Amino acid sequence: MPLHWTAGLHHDGSALYVSNPLPTQDEVVTLRLRAPLGAPIRAVFLRTAPDGEEFLEALRPDREEGVCAWWVGELKMTMPSLPYRFKIMSDEGAYWLTAMGVSRADAPDWFDFKLLADFSAPRWLEDAIFYQVFPDRFHNGDPGNDVPAGLSWGRHGFKTQQRDWGEDPLPWASAGSLDYYGGDLAGVMQKLDYLQDLGVNSLFLNPIFTAYSNHRYDIADYHHVDPYLGGDQALIDLRRALDDRQMRLILDVTPNHCGFRNVWFLEAQANRAAPTADFFTFTHHPDEYETWLGHKSLVKLNYRSYRLREAMYRASDSVLRRWLHEPYRIDGWRLDVANMTARQGMTQLAHEVWRELRQVVKHDNPDAYLFGENFFDGTPHLQGDELDATMNYQGFTIPLWRWLRGLETASSDRWIDHTPLPAEALAEQWTRFRAAVPWAVARQQFIQLGSHDTPRILTIAGGDKALLKLASTLLLTFPGVPCIYYGDEIGMEGTDDPDNRRCMRWDEATWDTDLRNHYKGLIELRRNAPALRRGGFQMIHAEGGLLAYLRQSPEQRLLVVGWRGPEWLPPTLLPVRHAGIADGARLVDLLKGRAFTVKDGRILLEGVGRSGMLVLEG
Amino acid sequence: MPLHWTAGLHHDGSALYVSNPLPTQDEVVTLRLRAPLGAPIRAVFLRTAPDGEEFLEALRPDREEGVCAWWVGELKMTMPSLPYRFKIMSDEGAYWLTAMGVSRADAPDWFDFKLLADFSAPRWLEDAIFYQVFPDRFHNGDPGNDVPAGLSWGRHGFKTQQRDWGEDPLPWASAGSLDYYGGDLAGVMQKLDYLQDLGVNSLFLNPIFTAYSNHRYDIADYHHVDPYLGGDQALIDLRRALDDRQMRLILDVTPNHCGFRNVWFLEAQANRAAPTADFFTFTHHPDEYETWLGHKSLVKLNYRSYRLREAMYRASDSVLRRWLHEPYRIDGWRLDVANMTARQGMTQLAHEVWRELRQVVKHDNPDAYLFGENFFDGTPHLQGDELDATMNYQGFTIPLWRWLRGLETASSDRWIDHTPLPAEALAEQWTRFRAAVPWAVARQQFIQLGSHDTPRILTIAGGDKALLKLASTLLLTFPGVPCIYYGDEIGMEGTDDPDNRRCMRWDEATWDTDLRNHYKGLIELRRNAPALRRGGFQMIHAEGGLLAYLRQSPEQRLLVVGWRGPEWLPPTLLPVRHAGIADGARLVDLLKGRAFTVKDGRILLEGVGRSGMLVLEG
Repeated sequence: MPLHWTAGLHHDGSALYVSNPLPTQDEVVTLRLRAPLGAPIRAVFLRTAPDGEEFLEALRPDREEGVCAWWVGELKMTMPSLPYRFKIMSDEGAYWLTAMGVSRADAPDWFDFKLLADFSAPRWLEDAIFYQVFPDRFHNGDPGNDVPAGLSWGRHGFKTQQRDWGEDPLPWASAGSLDYYGGDLAGVMQKLDYLQDLGVNSLFLNPIFTAYSNHRYDIADYHHVDPYLGGDQALIDLRRALDDRQMRLILDVTPNHCGFRNVWFLEAQANRAAPTADFFTFTHHPDEYETWLGHKSLVKLNYRSYRLREAMYRASDSVLRRWLHEPYRIDGWRLDVANMTARQGMTQLAHEVWRELRQVVKHDNPDAYLFGENFFDGTPHLQGDELDATMNYQGFTIPLWRWLRGLETASSDRWIDHTPLPAEALAEQWTRFRAAVPWAVARQQFIQLGSHDTPRILTIAGGDKALLKLASTLLLTFPGVPCIYYGDEIGMEGTDDPDNRRCMRWDEATWDTDLRNHYKGLIELRRNAPALRRGGFQMIHAEGGLLAYLRQSPEQRLLVVGWRGPEWLPPTLLPVRHAGIADGARLVDLLKGRAFTVKDGRILLEGVGRSGMLVLEG
Repeated sequence: MPLHWTAGLHHDGSALYVSNPLPTQDEVVTLRLRAPLGAPIRAVFLRTAPDGEEFLEALRPDREEGVCAWWVGELKMTMPSLPYRFKIMSDEGAYWLTAMGVSRADAPDWFDFKLLADFSAPRWLEDAIFYQVFPDRFHNGDPGNDVPAGLSWGRHGFKTQQRDWGEDPLPWASAGSLDYYGGDLAGVMQKLDYLQDLGVNSLFLNPIFTAYSNHRYDIADYHHVDPYLGGDQALIDLRRALDDRQMRLILDVTPNHCGFRNVWFLEAQANRAAPTADFFTFTHHPDEYETWLGHKSLVKLNYRSYRLREAMYRASDSVLRRWLHEPYRIDGWRLDVANMTARQGMTQLAHEVWRELRQVVKHDNPDAYLFGENFFDGTPHLQGDELDATMNYQGFTIPLWRWLRGLETASSDRWIDHTPLPAEALAEQWTRFRAAVPWAVARQQFIQLGSHDTPRILTIAGGDKALLKLASTLLLTFPGVPCIYYGDEIGMEGTDDPDNRRCMRWDEATWDTDLRNHYKGLIELRRNAPALRRGGFQMIHAEGGLLAYLRQSPEQRLLVVGWRGPEWLPPTLLPVRHAGIADGARLVDLLKGRAFTVKDGRILLEGVGRSGMLVLEG
């Protein structure tokens, strides 16, 4: 069945469609809408609602080119966040085009495209490709600072253990997260050549502050780098080494809770009147208190306390500010358990706290990147005045896993849907989460195929390297800030924690060189492709195991095609006219060099192997 | 094509599905899900996210009855607003059921069902049927207080005119809204028998405070009833008369702007240092100031001013509070131009102001009803802590007009889509706006077929009384608080303002008695039908000109069917099994008495005439 002409209506927040995607207050921006040439369109209106009152203004027909007819108009940035949609008057009646798609039905403003005035977006993100390192497991650069064995650190009778590099991490039940491999910041520094060779330019380190577990999410002292990682000086050294290579650095902090050996908490337990006493919620002092999900070693922080806010982010030497300053100058924060921070049942302070926190952080460094962990829905906090991003599990990763092989991650196996998701549903979920935030925010979401909190992507893919290559191609061609979890690029596997935190393998003989070259090639492609760094996004096709999307900037047009099937793709005619691509256009695959020519609005996909992908330029 | 089994999955916030639709903090409510018997369901999970962290809990299979299999589980009210959804594990994979419907794709929390803890809902609304009166045009009860002719009240050189009852209202260009017909509060009092005979029990009066136009939206003194309507005493008298009849009273106030003759404004113009000076936004004192949409006679109020907030709603003798007290004791407010109130470009204070305003109003009278004018999207202000309702134009009225006859209202004819909307799009729009708010809020939305701001419904219907009967049937069977615009029930017509504000016709010979009896019958049906007063809502069918929805309470099940076609409905098999209705069930039309029997999961609709409707019980 031929596509309805409305499939060819497109707008997004990228430069082809918005003259300045980051306008200032009162700036007049030019908006553009792409329509199919010859569509039964009578008029197009831009619909805004200044101060809540609907206003429609006619767009002007602009140039026609190829199979496209463009409409153009102006929009003045009268509000901090400006929702807008298009009303397309046609022979068939009026259609609305919103960020959620085309519909005869009108919709709440939630569906709208949104432009932000005076939005401070870190420009460097558009070129950033991150690499995530779990410090204890990346490289032991200084065996002199290894955690000794036999220390009684935990609440549960476990003692620290020294493990040999490459041994399997021990499950919690036998080590209590006290099995250490000696990885440290010196080790990271020694491997910067490796990272640069791979092509990444930004480093995301899991926690490095003083703590009493191998993951260090039980922070004991927010003001010092763990001496077993090299202490504060090691971070200063690392910062300088990264500067030399023009690399960025993000640290990981938990504002939701701290460890039970935290200096603030010990003070509060010792003295009911301590200045830190109200940082916590004691139900019965000193031993009964609110925790993170019932773990008594992880003590919930109480943002009703203004003193806590001072200590955590308001004061200039507060946790979140001091590390932004010399000599550490980190480039931003990953906020652990952001989804739960400043939320305690009937007291829901998250909007207030994130707004305040953003203001001070951006005051100190407008280019700082603030992204939160959120496995669920972070979009209410992504409207331009709170967080820059979340780890976009729901808007990218999890539906992708489900599409690839019917896997997701959940606290209980019973909840997992093992039926592979059709591409239609994948596209729908991507759209819903993208539409929920302004484009300027959507494009800076932190995207990964996996992390220290999930199975590794190769394991999700059932060990199928072809599927992994497909997944990594989508990661590096999707809107957002991509991040590679250490070792994915050499073919490391791992199920849930702690198996996903195995030691990085430095014996090159164990590497999957073909896979690593695939990653290197994609990273280079991403870094040099304006359409991937800054381009818009249009879903072009989504059916069962096949998907295709367009990435387009003024300089470049790329069509990404992915086929998940374990078998070869049967010869398939892929419609592309609604992507604005005219007959006769020659599309060349940047991965394998094959060329396709558009005929009757379609290209013939032939010879696409199992879990195949194409990145077509033209 | 038979319906997919997932069409039979249903949940809403009504008593069949939520043990207590208005739970208190920490209360445990029982939730129920209706599924089709024999569906390939393996398990059902209730998905919540306490403090932002996903939690799934298995529902238990409950009783099976007829064609339904029920699932049941508990939910604890741990947050002020609690979003939830259902995950249905089936042989085909997992489906999500949210307020937006069924999907394989997951979604942001915006899609969720939502339960509110400690939500103060005026219980009387469930039985309220409103009647809207435009005071100057309803009845002249006291010719002694008529506005004299010849007063120079406006900014544009017009003088007041006395018009004869029944003459056509004059367009602005020839009267400047200064043509008066003498309607007053005494007139309303004299017609309370008429209202009670019709069956309505709640009165919504357009503005009655002192002002200098016939619509009185240019309020000059928020503290007095216009002497030309009878003054404060007339309101006291009306209140007592309404008390005697157990009728409710809502007044209309404009918190967004006041008239240029307002006492506060005159004071501010006269003296830059006046206490009211910062109630307004002077761009050049005293003659340049912010207005409502450029009308210099309507002066924008500035909610950056805490003194304005005191005067408007904070102080105990403030505008919004004093009329709630003795001797006036009004039952709530209709807030004119609520969509724009407390919004001025880069300063967007609406959430803050509505929250504050709700708190003081509900403090004085927890049963007060607060609803705002909003032709667009009011749902961000309908989450339980701001307004109780908006005039639900987008979530009910406008898509209904568009479905009925391809008409909508807009500031410009060029924007209007004259192509009738298919029922699919009508249902979609209703769903989107209903899903955007908690059920407890959705059921108290103020719904109308038209108002003093729109063409009358009979005119929208092109004078077609059959269409009007259909529309009024939908009004009185839809979830929400229905309101009849004065005179619609006797067949009055009228295009846009001022033609929609014609004088009420009291000569019974001019009434359409058949129409009025239709209204009376529906009102009686509504007042006595638990399914309409308190029942849930499920869209059962939506295709082109035909729609059907289910209203169901524990006591009653009603299926409402509407056919807009100007021709007779061809014999049609309407599927009803997914509404939980079993074969053999006998459904009786409460309007015309015909009976239908369910066979093979469907009923045969025969003999449904032009613009026909059925209200089937059984």
